Amino acid sequence: MSKEKEQTSISELGEFGLIERITKDIQIKNSSTIEGVGDDAAILDYKEKQIVISSDLLTEGIHFNLMYTPLKHLGYKAVIVNLSDVYAMNAVPKQITVNIALSVKFSVEAVEELYLGIHLACENYGVDLVGGDTTSSLTGLTISVTVLGEIEKDKAVLRSGAKRNDLLCVTGDLGGAYMGLQLLERENEVYKVNQKMQPQLDGYDYILERQLKPEARKDIVEALKKLEIKPTSMIDISDGLSSEILHLCKNSNVGCNLYEDKIPMDEQTKQMAEELNINPLVAALNGGEDYELLFTISMNDFEKIKNDPDFTIIGHITEASEGTNLITSGGSAIQLEAQGWNHGK
Amino acid sequence: MSKEKEQTSISELGEFGLIERITKDIQIKNSSTIEGVGDDAAILDYKEKQIVISSDLLTEGIHFNLMYTPLKHLGYKAVIVNLSDVYAMNAVPKQITVNIALSVKFSVEAVEELYLGIHLACENYGVDLVGGDTTSSLTGLTISVTVLGEIEKDKAVLRSGAKRNDLLCVTGDLGGAYMGLQLLERENEVYKVNQKMQPQLDGYDYILERQLKPEARKDIVEALKKLEIKPTSMIDISDGLSSEILHLCKNSNVGCNLYEDKIPMDEQTKQMAEELNINPLVAALNGGEDYELLFTISMNDFEKIKNDPDFTIIGHITEASEGTNLITSGGSAIQLEAQGWNHGK
Repeated sequence: MSKEKEQTSISELGEFGLIERITKDIQIKNSSTIEGVGDDAAILDYKEKQIVISSDLLTEGIHFNLMYTPLKHLGYKAVIVNLSDVYAMNAVPKQITVNIALSVKFSVEAVEELYLGIHLACENYGVDLVGGDTTSSLTGLTISVTVLGEIEKDKAVLRSGAKRNDLLCVTGDLGGAYMGLQLLERENEVYKVNQKMQPQLDGYDYILERQLKPEARKDIVEALKKLEIKPTSMIDISDGLSSEILHLCKNSNVGCNLYEDKIPMDEQTKQMAEELNINPLVAALNGGEDYELLFTISMNDFEKIKNDPDFTIIGHITEASEGTNLITSGGSAIQLEAQGWNHGK
Repeated sequence: MSKEKEQTSISELGEFGLIERITKDIQIKNSSTIEGVGDDAAILDYKEKQIVISSDLLTEGIHFNLMYTPLKHLGYKAVIVNLSDVYAMNAVPKQITVNIALSVKFSVEAVEELYLGIHLACENYGVDLVGGDTTSSLTGLTISVTVLGEIEKDKAVLRSGAKRNDLLCVTGDLGGAYMGLQLLERENEVYKVNQKMQPQLDGYDYILERQLKPEARKDIVEALKKLEIKPTSMIDISDGLSSEILHLCKNSNVGCNLYEDKIPMDEQTKQMAEELNINPLVAALNGGEDYELLFTISMNDFEKIKNDPDFTIIGHITEASEGTNLITSGGSAIQLEAQGWNHGK
């Protein structure tokens, strides 16, 4: 067996040895982190600011398939998914805790790969890993991350502030993560039938990266601050545009018109959709996992963003009584529908 | 089918319907909770205080067996396990987030039972449930809880402050939760062989409660404050006395002498141990899940606690070079050994 492939069983190191292995190189980046990992709890100090807190759970076979998801990417994504929630509050993430449950199929080296991704995300976003729990499970891998962020008083942007006539904006492009997933699933099916087949992934780097190594829109929170725009409401796009718009409208007690031909999509997303005979609009509306930001701004702020390539205005807010509509390219209005994990996601 | 037994599949309600169902009755108890569930993140405000944060993960088949664990008790315990970590910092818990992953075998009513226990623990300990994630899993139930607590500056008690000659103290009694588990496991084995057999649990209420519905020692943090004692180090007993003492000694770079005949045990714990032919000392040292507090105090504080029935002095701190010893009733010294989940827990 070559040195690269040597695997250590977790029982050899034990729980405490494993924790030591994955936490030994942690360096604290934020002055609000007083004590990090190693005690019953971490200690944080936020003085005059408010804290935001959010949690997400990823389970094997539901949120990820280890057949085509490198563990390092998975660790990275598990953190990103949470940071995205903090940015969606207009806040800055500062600390995370990570709980993982592992079945016996995972080696110490596998856990280290996972933590390489977790540490890299912490590094890239200036976040401190301050605690967590590492335990066993009967089957598969579960990752639960909690993130804390800070925000100045009265600067938090909730889902509930959208007003009639506000503009509905989105960052980046949509549907890419979903089409990346479809491509990975297709190649995985081919591989299961014939293990000599090499996966055909060329030319689809962008949508694969959208699925396997998404980023959170830290830059948008910074850009909004620079532009002196405080959105009236904001949410991140984890479940698909349709579902997130419905959340905003419900919490703000408003309606909206969303314009089909305004929804930003990348060329690769459209190409893959055509290749797989999927309507790209479905990928954008219901696909999810794009981790872009959806927000509303006052009409008065229109001039500040109209030429910024990071933002696309995709519709506007109406009275609740007017409903939540998708206006198709043909000009007809269709009621938007909610998605969630009950729909087979 | 009788009304009590009607079960709603989670897919009928959907993710968002389920979240609405389990969060609709939440009332905020702490002024530090600015915004609770319902947005991308909760918002907290701690002004001049420091925050402690801790996380724990419970997985089905490893931490609990639903054959004999009522879901309401499980929800309660999942919260308690986390609150205990906050008390072990000498802090007061204020908010929790709860992430759960559920397989299709769980109905909406089952999730409601689980949350009844979670809400009850929040009620009893004055804690706000401020967020979390509810998702699906391929098999079984996973619960991940993160807790935030507050503490005045410089009042946090770490694992690292124990000094030579300090007294080693423990609250309550030990080994009960482990013996309760052994009893439940025995009756479960009997039941699996003959489903007409009724479980024989009479007379063992105390150890069953220690296992199924433990409490966190909120009262001890209050009592220490009243007695004007700041422990030099503290940890909660989740993995067994032996393992926790080793954590304290390692983090504080000290040794200790622990006296076998000082370790507090309840009569029921000893009786059950005798019945099952288990050495009760093993239950106390390695059993875990008692959620009592282990701490060290300066000799100067001895007078303040010597007559308090809540506290038992079980040993004292020595130089690191003297080792971490269990002094048996016979007077011989045995090296304490670490436990963790690699030992089959």
